[in-house]
Amino acid sequence: MRTYLDCLPCFVRQTLEAARFVTDDEAVHADVLRQVLRAASEMDMSMAPPAMGQHIHRLIRKATGNADPYREVKGQFNRLALDLYPDLVRRVEAADDRLETAVRLAIAGNIIDFGVSATISDEAVGKTIDRALRDPLVGRVDDLRQAAADADTILYLADNAGEIVFDRILIETLDAENLAVGVKSVPVINDATAEDAEAAGLRGRWEIVENGSDAPGTLLETCSEAFRERFMAADLVIAKGQGNYETLSKAPRPVWFILMAKCPVIAGHLGCEVGNLVIRESASTSEPRTHA
Amino acid sequence: MRTYLDCLPCFVRQTLEAARFVTDDEAVHADVLRQVLRAASEMDMSMAPPAMGQHIHRLIRKATGNADPYREVKGQFNRLALDLYPDLVRRVEAADDRLETAVRLAIAGNIIDFGVSATISDEAVGKTIDRALRDPLVGRVDDLRQAAADADTILYLADNAGEIVFDRILIETLDAENLAVGVKSVPVINDATAEDAEAAGLRGRWEIVENGSDAPGTLLETCSEAFRERFMAADLVIAKGQGNYETLSKAPRPVWFILMAKCPVIAGHLGCEVGNLVIRESASTSEPRTHA
Repeated sequence: MRTYLDCLPCFVRQTLEAARFVTDDEAVHADVLRQVLRAASEMDMSMAPPAMGQHIHRLIRKATGNADPYREVKGQFNRLALDLYPDLVRRVEAADDRLETAVRLAIAGNIIDFGVSATISDEAVGKTIDRALRDPLVGRVDDLRQAAADADTILYLADNAGEIVFDRILIETLDAENLAVGVKSVPVINDATAEDAEAAGLRGRWEIVENGSDAPGTLLETCSEAFRERFMAADLVIAKGQGNYETLSKAPRPVWFILMAKCPVIAGHLGCEVGNLVIRESASTSEPRTHA
Repeated sequence: MRTYLDCLPCFVRQTLEAARFVTDDEAVHADVLRQVLRAASEMDMSMAPPAMGQHIHRLIRKATGNADPYREVKGQFNRLALDLYPDLVRRVEAADDRLETAVRLAIAGNIIDFGVSATISDEAVGKTIDRALRDPLVGRVDDLRQAAADADTILYLADNAGEIVFDRILIETLDAENLAVGVKSVPVINDATAEDAEAAGLRGRWEIVENGSDAPGTLLETCSEAFRERFMAADLVIAKGQGNYETLSKAPRPVWFILMAKCPVIAGHLGCEVGNLVIRESASTSEPRTHA
């Protein structure tokens, strides 16, 4: 999807929040904010919003000289999510519809958005999980079930650290022979990298594929050629979270999106309400796909 | 007060809201937003925040070719406030402390902020008035009472249309021989002009002084020489609303501020909580004042 005017105030607000999260140096806050304001004033609105996120976090990393400012927080939330893991697995095993429960838990991981605040209470996490298991799901799990059954190869694009442990439960429930997990090559915000996939316990059992990019979401034009080939060749692509929806809603192949709609622009684009739990296949905008 | 980094995302958000309020033309929204982003990227942060408000609304007026885009709304809310006027006067007359009740009602007018939304329910207005009469007041009405008793000349700087009818009640309660009401010379947002002062029923009984400016608040450097002389010469200056606090908190003479703290930056500057009703005399930063 393109960038909307409503995204611009949000970029500026997010920049200040991120800069403050990463450093106490007010000169850095001001410098990064001014650069983002200038970049936003000239932004090509046909780009997906995460293109600006990529720019913002490059500026923050450069200004702070810190290549991975969220590393500690990511580790913390991977561990927190791993503590929850055994109980979540039991919930899936006890469920009437294991896939639907695993999808709901994957969305719970997306709602919690571990990277947004430095701390999160056990109570808040518990409430979010209960809510994700109970609220209506916009979209049809049965269609994903069928698509997964029909697919020989699946590419699962992870979203954030912490959340990736919740994704692991869905990945395990899909129980596909040939599934690869896509992650960022370069740390950006709290997005999952290969290190996080390993921390989440995915390495070994599933192939981890780095996308070659430092953009939040999956900005295909910034990904490696090798990743783009994998993306196009997979029988089924599942993409977690808003960033992946923003960057892949018009991808040149069908993609299954699993997310909570967190902002009015995304909700409007999806045709749902803010806060809805969504599972949705994109319409393909490409020629009929040829299987590899 | 100076501009804080937190003001910058707010400027961008307010620009989009104001542009949309004033026109449906999305090209204008985008054009104004981009210009404000660029201006914000270069802003002199030692300026008071309303300097950017002045710039934003000049851009909007120029882009739309509409010299007073809020005129209709201002008229509407002047009339709405005038409908309330007789009841509000009765409340003051029945009060144990008439001045305190009038100060509280003046703050109620500031809370309602008639210009922010195009419509406002009678119920919401009633609740706000009740709240303003009940909530704790941060500051001492007795000190204002004394300052008013000691003053031969008072300059009362109005804030917005609609609200100016509430100010009229406080002005009438002050019952000073020699009181002038300061208003904007050029329409900006819903700030009160001489036209609004007349609509509120102030002309004739009180002198109306235009400040020579099109900035929200009172940016002295953009006001006329004649206004600045009046401002410095008055025995007592009372300034309504956040914009006047933002622009006059470091004025070269003492000023009494009456407002609700509506944003965290202002509340932090005042040393109070967001939502507090405040009556506060600024510390004078000038040499001892010489009476005219």
